[in-house]
Amino acid sequence: MRTITDIREMQSIAIQLKREGKTIGFVPTMGYLHEGHLSLLSAARKENDVTVVSIFVNPLQFGPKEDLATYPRDFERDSSLAEKEGNDYIFFPSADEMYPVTPSVTAKVQDRTDVLCGKSRPGHFDGVATVLIKLFNIVQPDKVYFGMKDAQQVAVVDGLVRDFNIPVEIVPVQTVREEDGLAKSSRNVHLLPAERDQATALHQSLKMAESAIDEGEQDPQKILARMKEFIKKNTSGEIDYIEILSYPNLKQISRLEGKIIIAMAVKFSKARLIDNAIISVKKES
Amino acid sequence: MRTITDIREMQSIAIQLKREGKTIGFVPTMGYLHEGHLSLLSAARKENDVTVVSIFVNPLQFGPKEDLATYPRDFERDSSLAEKEGNDYIFFPSADEMYPVTPSVTAKVQDRTDVLCGKSRPGHFDGVATVLIKLFNIVQPDKVYFGMKDAQQVAVVDGLVRDFNIPVEIVPVQTVREEDGLAKSSRNVHLLPAERDQATALHQSLKMAESAIDEGEQDPQKILARMKEFIKKNTSGEIDYIEILSYPNLKQISRLEGKIIIAMAVKFSKARLIDNAIISVKKES
Repeated sequence: MRTITDIREMQSIAIQLKREGKTIGFVPTMGYLHEGHLSLLSAARKENDVTVVSIFVNPLQFGPKEDLATYPRDFERDSSLAEKEGNDYIFFPSADEMYPVTPSVTAKVQDRTDVLCGKSRPGHFDGVATVLIKLFNIVQPDKVYFGMKDAQQVAVVDGLVRDFNIPVEIVPVQTVREEDGLAKSSRNVHLLPAERDQATALHQSLKMAESAIDEGEQDPQKILARMKEFIKKNTSGEIDYIEILSYPNLKQISRLEGKIIIAMAVKFSKARLIDNAIISVKKES
Repeated sequence: MRTITDIREMQSIAIQLKREGKTIGFVPTMGYLHEGHLSLLSAARKENDVTVVSIFVNPLQFGPKEDLATYPRDFERDSSLAEKEGNDYIFFPSADEMYPVTPSVTAKVQDRTDVLCGKSRPGHFDGVATVLIKLFNIVQPDKVYFGMKDAQQVAVVDGLVRDFNIPVEIVPVQTVREEDGLAKSSRNVHLLPAERDQATALHQSLKMAESAIDEGEQDPQKILARMKEFIKKNTSGEIDYIEILSYPNLKQISRLEGKIIIAMAVKFSKARLIDNAIISVKKES
């Protein structure tokens, strides 16, 4: 496995690989890899000739009050995990390498940003889209792997790729969970022990909602009320949002039908966790 | 020469050409080709294995009060001119093909837009950058050719390519002029006969400015005043702007030194014309 820190070097390697007819599978990450990332890499490994993992904590997608400085970093550990998984290239640029000057052009996400994480993180998805355009141009991937834990990101990236005619395939990969259901996240390390136990309530509340829908509940507001009550009762966290929207368009719905997403963010003392479930609501018989 | 109207077809042809190791030279245009465009195509022809000319009047770069509807169009003539020049592919998509839905992500140009044409055309360069990202992804060019008549566009595109790490080389090509100095433009056909004669004053005023600078004038304001007076005296057009800026950064300057651009836009009854000169100001001896 090779570690590349230089944009031009990574780009010329990628262009050369494409000339040789090799397919490139790409896993963009902010590092501090966990099994969720490794499941993306494993999928990329199976479906492509060459894999690239990028590790870049992108300042552009953090708000001024967000956790850019404290975002966990451990390159040595990441590197050894990626190598064990059979990865070929780690692209690990510095912030100065990626943004040597204030960018004169950025991406502006016009849709799907006024809900879920977009609502409380203005500019977040503009930063995500901007860095992904850069990374796609540098790494030249055929397929790019994203975890469904951040379902809104997958929906935004789907729009980006479609609207800019980027010749890549976006491959969504199911969320990897701890045994007790907590979604794997780099931010989980910041949970206090008591919070770590409580945090299973996020997934439990989603399971509860799924059961209620299975049993015929059609009113999103009733589901949301029950979920909020459950989270409040079982955790010390503060609910940032719980929403039920159509998927992948992320529009408000007044009745549960078709493909929907139930998604939430809960703030614990030093970690804000997200989770979601995407459900195809059965039609009434 | 082949005409392609379908994005996927153009993109797969381009990707296949790249796999074969062919270089692609690309001339993006809004059609109604004139010798200016043909000089771009001729340069592309010389420096690449394959050439692509796109013809697309991009609605995203026209303001609500601008000339989208009346922008001159003549595909048959364009096609025959491009073929004579030895062009390989014309990419000629419809507006519905390029924008089947309102784009969920667009480009936002953050710099170099508050001067020259950007000032009176808010959103214009966002539209230019958005369509160019799309076209670059579809046509996969190695080199892209732009006329220096729209020097601000070249500066913005340079920033776009740098900041998004797009693996293309931008090749600026000198403005082609009529015998009397008028810069070739698709919009020249909309000039009334008397206006056509007057329009040479744009280029003459630039020549006048160059002479004054050669003779040691260092004050941009004095040059601008003389140019404005000349245009007002010799044309019925209305000056949209005349500016002197640093190049390529397009910043205001109080003294003439280094590389500068003198640029102007003048509105005639049915055509708004632009022209410019880029000058390296000699140091005082």
